[in-house]
Amino acid sequence: MAQKPSIPKGTRDFGPAEMAGRNYIFDTIKSVFRTYGYMPIETPSMENLSTLLGKYGEEGDKLLFRILNSGDAFSGVDIGGFMDGDGGIDGRALTSRVCEKGLRYDLTVPFARFVVQHQNELVFPFKRYQIQPVWRADRPQKGRYREFYQCDADVIGSRSLLNELELVQIVDRVFSLFDVAVLIKVNNRKVLSGLAEIAGFPDKVVDITVAIDKIDKIGLEAVEAEMRERGLTDAAIAVIEPVLTLKGNSSEKIAAMRALMSGGSASGLVSETGLKGLDELDELFGLIGAAGISREVEMDLSLARGLNYYTGAIFEVKAVDFQIGSICGGGRYDNLTGIFGLPDMSGVGISFGADRIYDVLKGLDKFPKEVTSSTRLLFANMGTDELKYILPVARALREAGVSCEIYADTAKLKKQFDYAAKKHVPFISITGAEEISRNVVNLKNLATGEQVSVPSSDLNGIISFLFA
Amino acid sequence: MAQKPSIPKGTRDFGPAEMAGRNYIFDTIKSVFRTYGYMPIETPSMENLSTLLGKYGEEGDKLLFRILNSGDAFSGVDIGGFMDGDGGIDGRALTSRVCEKGLRYDLTVPFARFVVQHQNELVFPFKRYQIQPVWRADRPQKGRYREFYQCDADVIGSRSLLNELELVQIVDRVFSLFDVAVLIKVNNRKVLSGLAEIAGFPDKVVDITVAIDKIDKIGLEAVEAEMRERGLTDAAIAVIEPVLTLKGNSSEKIAAMRALMSGGSASGLVSETGLKGLDELDELFGLIGAAGISREVEMDLSLARGLNYYTGAIFEVKAVDFQIGSICGGGRYDNLTGIFGLPDMSGVGISFGADRIYDVLKGLDKFPKEVTSSTRLLFANMGTDELKYILPVARALREAGVSCEIYADTAKLKKQFDYAAKKHVPFISITGAEEISRNVVNLKNLATGEQVSVPSSDLNGIISFLFA
Repeated sequence: MAQKPSIPKGTRDFGPAEMAGRNYIFDTIKSVFRTYGYMPIETPSMENLSTLLGKYGEEGDKLLFRILNSGDAFSGVDIGGFMDGDGGIDGRALTSRVCEKGLRYDLTVPFARFVVQHQNELVFPFKRYQIQPVWRADRPQKGRYREFYQCDADVIGSRSLLNELELVQIVDRVFSLFDVAVLIKVNNRKVLSGLAEIAGFPDKVVDITVAIDKIDKIGLEAVEAEMRERGLTDAAIAVIEPVLTLKGNSSEKIAAMRALMSGGSASGLVSETGLKGLDELDELFGLIGAAGISREVEMDLSLARGLNYYTGAIFEVKAVDFQIGSICGGGRYDNLTGIFGLPDMSGVGISFGADRIYDVLKGLDKFPKEVTSSTRLLFANMGTDELKYILPVARALREAGVSCEIYADTAKLKKQFDYAAKKHVPFISITGAEEISRNVVNLKNLATGEQVSVPSSDLNGIISFLFA
Repeated sequence: MAQKPSIPKGTRDFGPAEMAGRNYIFDTIKSVFRTYGYMPIETPSMENLSTLLGKYGEEGDKLLFRILNSGDAFSGVDIGGFMDGDGGIDGRALTSRVCEKGLRYDLTVPFARFVVQHQNELVFPFKRYQIQPVWRADRPQKGRYREFYQCDADVIGSRSLLNELELVQIVDRVFSLFDVAVLIKVNNRKVLSGLAEIAGFPDKVVDITVAIDKIDKIGLEAVEAEMRERGLTDAAIAVIEPVLTLKGNSSEKIAAMRALMSGGSASGLVSETGLKGLDELDELFGLIGAAGISREVEMDLSLARGLNYYTGAIFEVKAVDFQIGSICGGGRYDNLTGIFGLPDMSGVGISFGADRIYDVLKGLDKFPKEVTSSTRLLFANMGTDELKYILPVARALREAGVSCEIYADTAKLKKQFDYAAKKHVPFISITGAEEISRNVVNLKNLATGEQVSVPSSDLNGIISFLFA
């Protein structure tokens, strides 16, 4: 009996309409990356597990898709050695024995591995973009998939804040091209470290950032309660609170923060790290002013983002008119390649969330109309003689870059029109014996009903009618 | 200690230079696919093993990469049940228990699965192209990888030979754009079946095709020896031999074959299937003549290709001036979707071998020169004031689509020039206080040494110099 076909849960097929939208997104982002000198790379879908394990925390290790060694993976494996006294099995140990490769979990760790492995072939600072799928054995749910594309740009080997500016400019340009209003939030991890220092809990920077990162979702009081649970004192919270409620433009915020970091907070403590972070923010916002940014950029001192490897700037982008969470984010990291033996390589990167951007463009009806149809003209198939008459015309149009189709069979015209309608083909040509005798082709605009005869040798005339 | 980074054997990293070449290949092929109304789809990297198993023969099943079930795959598995009396283990059975998914092996089976699963959403005839990686646990060797891209176009739901013509036209156009001389060989599987029939061995069509397919490599005598080994009689070989040595143009070959298939061979047997195949070849070559093809097309009656699911036309493309084997191939299949419950869907498709085409273009030096560099202009970084002066100029250039970079740090000019040279950036701008006072930017052509000053507001003037 035939199988009922299906695909693994959490994975997706993309048909022509979705592909058109997705390609529009990727092509737009790529075109902007390129104008800033970012170049594409690709890495293998499978990496050695030794490359991946331990890079994403214990939870991440569990979410890796592991590939069974090829050939008979269990051949020569002494299963007895993996069994415990109760007849149970040590699945973790047996898995390591029979799986040496895993599917990539993100593009950042493979990029770090790539930079170290190819360091002698690369020109630094090295600017790369990478658009490839990643895989996570997460529980599938709405908007969360087990296979999805990431779309990253990173520059490595330069500490200059010009790189941060350029990433902000790239975000600005991409969403200008998409015609989507976004808010670009910027913070600096050093300011968060400084905050922990002047609060008197320098080793609780992760607890503090995890808590304050939630302020948009749960509000100030709940954040303070969480900080208390995480072991912060009322005195420490009294130092942090004013920062969370800070108002004003970026210069005013920086001035207020400088005062706090210089000993003006309730604790009277000074943080050199915090002041360094404020200097960086000041310089970055100065560059943003000089470059001119069309979208809104906001300094948000509560912005933390989960990833602990960030050491400087942090970015997050949200759509203003569509509720969906972060659609782009990134930051600076100082030691990503250290794990692979190349220390002191500072880098900064951003990642565009293609699936969410797709939902935003669809929700706001921002996809260009042309991306939904591809074929411009359908030649009806009226028989062999007509076909042979049409073939050179179709060829010339295609060589000029015009997408056209010839209906493959000599079906009833009704069926051929239906095909054009279902595929949203805007023009049809019904060229029969009469047209052939006059050396013309017939062209009909299916939306307006307008019909013309154009000499079959007049390629420009045909194209003019199709793109009037 | 830091790990020495590496990637799994048989996989590859692609750096910017290789990506430029590969994207040139894919973009060219896609652009041609589109002009014929082919639309892109993508399917998941992982398919259920039930979709993949049994579709590629026993050898193919062994070459599938299997993905361990997520979570603890061995939890609850009664290992004892998979052990034989000698303490050995039934690896095949245990693998099926702990792996339900595999990486796709080609694009054809996932396409068949896609068509059946989405049949109610699709417009038939359905023309799709698909460019995605596939994975095979083959022994890695020169030119054979465990992960590689396939680049396929198929149309399904039409028996018209116009589809075959269009695939030949697509091949013709693609290699015209690549400026590569190719020989397009065409045959028809029905003619091969007819040959087996008039030889008196209708059930030995696979043996016959496997043998005669090797004629280019091993010669006529070795092919005849192989047929004898495969159980064909001298009488049968006497029927087949004249076909293998047939000379002439396509009309002459068809006429000669018609005579043989109509009872004029040594056996005197008639093959209706063979005659049907000759009718199809005749019609296809008639269409090829009407459309006009710029590359060479040859009817090759010994062309068989391994894939047994072909039922009509068979294609194969070889580079004329570069020895590398087939760089493109395909054919018609009548029942690809039957295994998934949708019978009677005839289709025809081709597949471009991207890795080999890359080697051909590289070997023949046919990559366009522009694809090797991306950034057109590097602005030297002369300090903060100069940077702020340059930023709006760089922004305007980028918004006009010109790729430019600003050197990120205020390094020595020598270092900045080195960066431009290593990245093959053709123009540099050294704009300092003097230029700022005159409201100009300096531009230097690094190849010719020519240097100009252009008003910083004269975007067209700057672009003219960069693209003169």
